[in-house]
Amino acid sequence: MRVLGVDPGLTRCGVGVVDGVPGRALAMAGVGVIRTPADAEIGHRLVLIERGLEAWLDEHRPEAVAVERVFSQHNVRTVMGTAQASAVAILCAARRGLPVHLHTPSEVKAAVTGSGRAGKEQVGAMVTRLLRLDAPPKPADAADALALAICHIWRSPATNRLQQAVAGNRLRQTAAGTRLQQAAGARRAAPRPPVPTQEPPA
Amino acid sequence: MRVLGVDPGLTRCGVGVVDGVPGRALAMAGVGVIRTPADAEIGHRLVLIERGLEAWLDEHRPEAVAVERVFSQHNVRTVMGTAQASAVAILCAARRGLPVHLHTPSEVKAAVTGSGRAGKEQVGAMVTRLLRLDAPPKPADAADALALAICHIWRSPATNRLQQAVAGNRLRQTAAGTRLQQAAGARRAAPRPPVPTQEPPA
Repeated sequence: MRVLGVDPGLTRCGVGVVDGVPGRALAMAGVGVIRTPADAEIGHRLVLIERGLEAWLDEHRPEAVAVERVFSQHNVRTVMGTAQASAVAILCAARRGLPVHLHTPSEVKAAVTGSGRAGKEQVGAMVTRLLRLDAPPKPADAADALALAICHIWRSPATNRLQQAVAGNRLRQTAAGTRLQQAAGARRAAPRPPVPTQEPPA
Repeated sequence: MRVLGVDPGLTRCGVGVVDGVPGRALAMAGVGVIRTPADAEIGHRLVLIERGLEAWLDEHRPEAVAVERVFSQHNVRTVMGTAQASAVAILCAARRGLPVHLHTPSEVKAAVTGSGRAGKEQVGAMVTRLLRLDAPPKPADAADALALAICHIWRSPATNRLQQAVAGNRLRQTAAGTRLQQAAGARRAAPRPPVPTQEPPA
């Protein structure tokens, strides 16, 4: 599973690509920062972020995108820019039909370090260890983007199992529906009772 | 001058197109609302807003886009969605090279009604009168989008005069610079003193 993590920001938008499945060693496929000039107009900045993210999506072809969930409790002066940059990231992924998942900063910290209150340095150190890098990625936005991708890979089994179960049920129901229609068409049989919805496997 | 006003929102994004110049009668070219289902995923909602805005831009070909400036002081629960929808509007306009202007709600109210504290009904009533409509546009988001476009048309002369003055100065400076280089190249003359920056015309 290849995940693009995005730590949204107008001045520095961190991006990191990680390959992995839960329980196996992770591998970094790429890391970087998309920067836009602080004195540029907001429209131009958002266009630069869009172009940058499109280039990352084109080059790395991730199967999912993990974006940091923005809270309005943050610094009021920067939160709008962060929300706007995150909107561009979510839009770029959704336009390609990629699943987008939002993770809160404390979810990411807890997944990577074991503590939802870990500092930037702890997150950077754990990312370095987990991806067997020579040094922590700089700036912190780049390390955070990798942490988001790792968080997503590790949290995904629960989500995936649920999704597969739901998709499986839909498939079974559709298959049953098709058989039902065929049966009705061929023999004008009375409709069968609907297939009971199964609980997702434990 | 044709302006597209956008009152950003995830559930209802108001759009209104107004033709006009300051001091002349205004004319509405179109008004509507882009809606997205509240239970859809954020990525899908942003894609729907992007598609909707692209259709409005394609059909009406405005020369400028006016978007309501989002403040984080607003309702904390809705402000993130509003910021994300506004980011999509700003991005769509900037991608086409259209100038994007942000106006605060009180600027818009003051421009249209004379009071920065006017209520929704007052804004709707003035928009109806100014555009000679039969009834106030519904919902309020649609009326607000038209008010944004009107505000932009009426506020633009000051902005335009400043921009033209600045652009004019840059042009004069560049022309002077070119003449300077030519003179230096041809005669190895000593550089002339820079052309003094002119104040914008009163």
